[in-house]
Amino acid sequence: MRDTSTSENEKNHARPAECATDGLSHSLVNRYAQIRAATEALAAPLSAEDQTIQSMPNASPTKCHRAHTSWFFETFLLTPHASGYTPFDERYGYLFNSYYEAAGARHPRAARGMLTRPGVEDVTAYRAYVDEAMSRFIPQCDVSLLPLVTLGLHHEQQHQELLLTDIKHAFSLNPLAPVYCARGKKPPANVSAPPLEWFTLPRGVHTIGHTGDGFAFDNEGPAHQTFIHEARIATRPVSIGEYLDFVNDGGYQRAEFWLAEGWDLIQREGWQAPAYWQQRDGLWESYTLHGMQLLREDEPVIHVSYYEAAAYAAWAGKRLPTEAEWEVAARHHATANARRAEQNPHPRPLAPGFTQDAWEWTGSAYLPYPRFQPAPGAVGEYNGKFMVNQMVLRGRSCATPPGHERLTYRNFFGPAARWQFSGFRLAEDA
Amino acid sequence: MRDTSTSENEKNHARPAECATDGLSHSLVNRYAQIRAATEALAAPLSAEDQTIQSMPNASPTKCHRAHTSWFFETFLLTPHASGYTPFDERYGYLFNSYYEAAGARHPRAARGMLTRPGVEDVTAYRAYVDEAMSRFIPQCDVSLLPLVTLGLHHEQQHQELLLTDIKHAFSLNPLAPVYCARGKKPPANVSAPPLEWFTLPRGVHTIGHTGDGFAFDNEGPAHQTFIHEARIATRPVSIGEYLDFVNDGGYQRAEFWLAEGWDLIQREGWQAPAYWQQRDGLWESYTLHGMQLLREDEPVIHVSYYEAAAYAAWAGKRLPTEAEWEVAARHHATANARRAEQNPHPRPLAPGFTQDAWEWTGSAYLPYPRFQPAPGAVGEYNGKFMVNQMVLRGRSCATPPGHERLTYRNFFGPAARWQFSGFRLAEDA
Amino acid sequence: MRDTSTSENEKNHARPAECATDGLSHSLVNRYAQIRAATEALAAPLSAEDQTIQSMPNASPTKCHRAHTSWFFETFLLTPHASGYTPFDERYGYLFNSYYEAAGARHPRAARGMLTRPGVEDVTAYRAYVDEAMSRFIPQCDVSLLPLVTLGLHHEQQHQELLLTDIKHAFSLNPLAPVYCARGKKPPANVSAPPLEWFTLPRGVHTIGHTGDGFAFDNEGPAHQTFIHEARIATRPVSIGEYLDFVNDGGYQRAEFWLAEGWDLIQREGWQAPAYWQQRDGLWESYTLHGMQLLREDEPVIHVSYYEAAAYAAWAGKRLPTEAEWEVAARHHATANARRAEQNPHPRPLAPGFTQDAWEWTGSAYLPYPRFQPAPGAVGEYNGKFMVNQMVLRGRSCATPPGHERLTYRNFFGPAARWQFSGFRLAEDA
Amino acid sequence: MRDTSTSENEKNHARPAECATDGLSHSLVNRYAQIRAATEALAAPLSAEDQTIQSMPNASPTKCHRAHTSWFFETFLLTPHASGYTPFDERYGYLFNSYYEAAGARHPRAARGMLTRPGVEDVTAYRAYVDEAMSRFIPQCDVSLLPLVTLGLHHEQQHQELLLTDIKHAFSLNPLAPVYCARGKKPPANVSAPPLEWFTLPRGVHTIGHTGDGFAFDNEGPAHQTFIHEARIATRPVSIGEYLDFVNDGGYQRAEFWLAEGWDLIQREGWQAPAYWQQRDGLWESYTLHGMQLLREDEPVIHVSYYEAAAYAAWAGKRLPTEAEWEVAARHHATANARRAEQNPHPRPLAPGFTQDAWEWTGSAYLPYPRFQPAPGAVGEYNGKFMVNQMVLRGRSCATPPGHERLTYRNFFGPAARWQFSGFRLAEDA
Repeated sequence: MRDTSTSENEKNHARPAECATDGLSHSLVNRYAQIRAATEALAAPLSAEDQTIQSMPNASPTKCHRAHTSWFFETFLLTPHASGYTPFDERYGYLFNSYYEAAGARHPRAARGMLTRPGVEDVTAYRAYVDEAMSRFIPQCDVSLLPLVTLGLHHEQQHQELLLTDIKHAFSLNPLAPVYCARGKKPPANVSAPPLEWFTLPRGVHTIGHTGDGFAFDNEGPAHQTFIHEARIATRPVSIGEYLDFVNDGGYQRAEFWLAEGWDLIQREGWQAPAYWQQRDGLWESYTLHGMQLLREDEPVIHVSYYEAAAYAAWAGKRLPTEAEWEVAARHHATANARRAEQNPHPRPLAPGFTQDAWEWTGSAYLPYPRFQPAPGAVGEYNGKFMVNQMVLRGRSCATPPGHERLTYRNFFGPAARWQFSGFRLAEDA
Repeated sequence: MRDTSTSENEKNHARPAECATDGLSHSLVNRYAQIRAATEALAAPLSAEDQTIQSMPNASPTKCHRAHTSWFFETFLLTPHASGYTPFDERYGYLFNSYYEAAGARHPRAARGMLTRPGVEDVTAYRAYVDEAMSRFIPQCDVSLLPLVTLGLHHEQQHQELLLTDIKHAFSLNPLAPVYCARGKKPPANVSAPPLEWFTLPRGVHTIGHTGDGFAFDNEGPAHQTFIHEARIATRPVSIGEYLDFVNDGGYQRAEFWLAEGWDLIQREGWQAPAYWQQRDGLWESYTLHGMQLLREDEPVIHVSYYEAAAYAAWAGKRLPTEAEWEVAARHHATANARRAEQNPHPRPLAPGFTQDAWEWTGSAYLPYPRFQPAPGAVGEYNGKFMVNQMVLRGRSCATPPGHERLTYRNFFGPAARWQFSGFRLAEDA
Repeated sequence: MRDTSTSENEKNHARPAECATDGLSHSLVNRYAQIRAATEALAAPLSAEDQTIQSMPNASPTKCHRAHTSWFFETFLLTPHASGYTPFDERYGYLFNSYYEAAGARHPRAARGMLTRPGVEDVTAYRAYVDEAMSRFIPQCDVSLLPLVTLGLHHEQQHQELLLTDIKHAFSLNPLAPVYCARGKKPPANVSAPPLEWFTLPRGVHTIGHTGDGFAFDNEGPAHQTFIHEARIATRPVSIGEYLDFVNDGGYQRAEFWLAEGWDLIQREGWQAPAYWQQRDGLWESYTLHGMQLLREDEPVIHVSYYEAAAYAAWAGKRLPTEAEWEVAARHHATANARRAEQNPHPRPLAPGFTQDAWEWTGSAYLPYPRFQPAPGAVGEYNGKFMVNQMVLRGRSCATPPGHERLTYRNFFGPAARWQFSGFRLAEDA
Repeated sequence: MRDTSTSENEKNHARPAECATDGLSHSLVNRYAQIRAATEALAAPLSAEDQTIQSMPNASPTKCHRAHTSWFFETFLLTPHASGYTPFDERYGYLFNSYYEAAGARHPRAARGMLTRPGVEDVTAYRAYVDEAMSRFIPQCDVSLLPLVTLGLHHEQQHQELLLTDIKHAFSLNPLAPVYCARGKKPPANVSAPPLEWFTLPRGVHTIGHTGDGFAFDNEGPAHQTFIHEARIATRPVSIGEYLDFVNDGGYQRAEFWLAEGWDLIQREGWQAPAYWQQRDGLWESYTLHGMQLLREDEPVIHVSYYEAAAYAAWAGKRLPTEAEWEVAARHHATANARRAEQNPHPRPLAPGFTQDAWEWTGSAYLPYPRFQPAPGAVGEYNGKFMVNQMVLRGRSCATPPGHERLTYRNFFGPAARWQFSGFRLAEDA
């Protein structure tokens, strides 16, 4: 699963797109500055204490997200390619390498929360040091290295989302239910989500996977043909209100809906509802980055595992879509709605009206696409090394940085994971 | 994974084939008698002590295999459909139900090795009691029930193979290396396996899955179209001699070949070779049902996990075939070699010259085929409930009962399992 | 703790008493025969299956008790001292050495339940082989070895009790509640135990520990002086009826009575009553070697851990006696009642009227007596090696072989153990 | 064991000495201010990050030590007795109650490292708030409460030592080996410790336990008579040089010296030397609060478990002293050396020349003294609740606050604990 702490997103690294010009260098300097600043902005509400702890082996301290993303630029660009560059601290290579075996020995993942030093201020200095060097390096480096800079930025954006899901998990363990950023206590929605509509997928050979010139992780390609059987796919994810019907219908007590592993898990762990949900005085609340909030029935359900998604689908007499079905439908939707999107004051470019603020579990295992080839070297060393025991998620969540999303994006986690913003939509055979 | 002790094979149950006539009844009585006797023959070399223990949660005592397969006939045929039938012992339903939630409460799987009573003789009496009732039931029952009898027999054949793999695992823990059935200590083979040949798969839409009138488990269908990309597939599995090259080349010490989960596993467990291998005085031996035996280089490697299969493939610069590739190639081979097979004095009908005595890991996750529908009722209740975190194996092993094998057969286990007779073959993109 | 499977009783081995004469040899031959036969009689109701399993790491299969006690005679007497003796099977030394490091490598304790071979009949043959050799050896051996024979017999008697407690534990896990030996279903006693009486211990220096010529384990000596403070000690153990008052008063739900470790344990394990108790239709039953039986209020409570004994004492406003207090009181009682005991048709010689059928937890940790010296060699190698994290129990239980009990006997187990026949009595400061 | 995180020292609470006068109030105000300031001085070198983490369940974050000791004064003095006092934050009672069941629900001990909020500054404010209130409360409170203030101060001093041992453990997990306070890298001592001398204990009844008017924890009393057998006790603890002889003699590889539990532990954990020791380039170093330091052979060995202490003693042909032997010898030494101590420029009052900078494991289990009575109420609720599975340590370490030590002091930990400054001395029977 994408169970991999600081590093989990590197798994998608990247036969990055090809060439670059001076204009690209210039815009890349700006983009570098923006994305690096965005990380710092996300960490800004967090105290030194907040940034230090590790709430489970699969999560990472905020501080490590901030340092590891810097380590990436230092290790793969500055140290080998920037003449005269001196690493900020020789020991950081050991501390902040998440999983690149080829890049040398590593501090054990599960012990990352024991690193009180280097402290938060040291990490801030580290980032500044790397940023200063990168701002000089990008304009003058060989253009062949610019794709690696781009990769480092996408890598950093992945960690931005993980920073949020990890701190949410950590805060959820604090009985004080800390507020990461304020928002008023919202009332429960009396309105339901709009009625489910179904999009029909035409039977036949379709092409999926990344084809364009833009950036994509290597696991999104090669584009290839696949056979799709006639089916219908919902045009929006399952809502909290709909999921509550499952909960209230005894969904967590009825073995017949569950994969055997899932049933064992919820028995053992005592799961009765999605992660972070609590019932108080008859009302359902959820821990959120705004603190405890009443549930809104019209929002997409999130923080469910694959097991829960599959159980809901069985209860509903449906199934989860495959990732191919999802991509074909989303692409159709994206095209059709392109004009509508232009009129949206806050457009999010990913299939507006189709996706919502939730990653969506698909029924597809995370496996290499036909003719997939791992990229050479440490950066690409492990492109495929997570391709077992994980399921693919598609879409984007409320925490996905704008511009990071793609219709071909393959997110992936183990079926038990639910600390991500993970929901799902339904499909059925036609 | 197919990690499920006594019961693991029920996972494949079965929209069994349709109708039956008197002739079918008659031949079914015979077939019933033969298959039930085959189980007893497999258990015959095992003492009461041997038949009692459970060597790991995923394995079952011999005694439970023998009882559970009888329970199947009693529960799904005799009790509901044989007028006047009295269950042998009311309490056996609780003790020998492996995982059918719809069939009531169950004894915990991992505690099955604590059931010294009923004893082996009680189980023998139970089997005789059920057999006697079945021999009267089959000829006179409604023909609509005959497919369920057939299903029960295939179910029993699955347990025959598990009986052997489970007792092999149990015996392997005994420092005396007990001999299940004798064979002379064989010398190591100086001869290598025949050179690898490659079969080219034509690009395009192919049909896979069960179509004929014969029996198949429901997970083998429906037959459906799938797109295959141009590729080559080896015409035999990887041999022990070839696998030894990987071992001797430091395969278990080089992270770059391994899936991340696999690498963690072999570090944690200290794996240095396939299960049951031991090096003594510079020679490799393996625990077998004949006791400790020197390795023969020309035989297919078995008792490897998916992780090891995938690591070997990466080391060899190849990959594992998908199950669709495997099935298309095996079907081609089976047809082409049909005549040659006729001349073979001991024909094994499954693609002779293509398959050997090893189940073969494929690169496909165990997921439902398009338009798969679970069968209704307890028998089919859980057809799909194991469809997560497992990989598909194809072929047949030395322990697969003759007649039980099929080109469309989908065996499945978790990627860490290696107590089955599991090997693999290679494929590569063309 | 005395948590040590087959071997746990060897912990008490033994500077056995000194010399021996022909008469002693003769009586020892008889005694050997009787005690060895008693073991076989205890195993007789158990099937091959029953004798094979190991229900927890601290328990041993019946078969191993039978073999290990034979191994003792073979290893420490026959092999080194009987000229021309050939071991029954060279490999048994590895298999049935429970913990003597000096006697060589050992099969791992927790894997003892995986040894289906040698089988029960092999063990029977092993015992006969050793017995035959011993019957010739004892009359002719050097008298200096007779104490070692005596030690082996006491060792065997310890295993007799363990054989019963271990099979009781194993059977308790079987939902069929097997009957080891029949007895009618008894009604719950309406009668209470006789009222508690208190014996006053005089303040001052007392001597405890083994002094006589008879056999004793080395941990029972040397006899030594100890200071006892004025106190009162109950003249019988706590009864089931009295313990039920504690249970019914919420004893298992009130932290204030419990040692912190005990409270953690009962929360974690969900203990609500002594081991083997079950409430059915409002009545308390207990699994016993006679099957499920209604509780009798007048019997001593057994199958409680030290934590439960200490919690009861706190609830009752009392404490547990020290082992010195227990021994002084029991000795007084034994002397005073000696005459009464003579008139008892079924005398049990250990302080009749004071002890009952329960080992009794004391408030004393199991530590060496002053000036204790471990015996030299393998037999005595580990006399003191269990002297940490264990509490002393005094008395004898229903399963203690007659003649094995002693006023100075120091039984010991970890504070969480409760599969022994362990109860307790109260004391208070005067 | 004294394995209990923030709270472990409360275990000793306290029938504190009786009355108080105005002078006492006055001096208590000063003493309160000094001790509270000492805690803050110990925390001063630690960053917010350092103060937040919990390196194992038995350790506590620095922040929690600071908060919990404040909670003690707030909960047992200010809230019930200071009129008009408003708790700093109602939720702190839940967060910082370490184990007092009677004081209400508690945050789980093992999750204490997840509390990033309240932050370090919040805790500083909390301490200031409590201190301000206490400075007004002490002079005007009922004199009957002053012993409780004194108890709170001794409680705080215990946490001062724990603060140091806990942060040492946490820092030891950091590959950067952080320096808590600087000291030059010291060379290994070429000089050995002074030769061992032996003090002879006279046989007979001795009195041990606290008798005077000064403060003592309740477990130090009542003073009582005990019988001591003739023995000799070393006049100083075992030195590092001496312990190295044991290590170099294969002490960690020879089962014959070890308690069975200890042997299992060192095999399982791979212990080869005391905690924090590392061999580099043939030289032994140790992690210390000054960073990595070469070992000095003349210093007392510390960071050994009871198992290691007992194994060393067995190797040396000696034993550990009982706590009674230790106390009698130390008292004799303290008296005899009183004059010499006066001439010492840096006197440490505890038996100078006898004790060194190490707590010393004794061979005595931590059990109640005869006629011990737990104090009533929450403060004393759990005086005896840790009295199982722990061994007594005597003396004082380099981290024991001056004035906190006493000849009757009973420190206690489980036999596996070695993150304390724990060494030992030898004894032998005379």
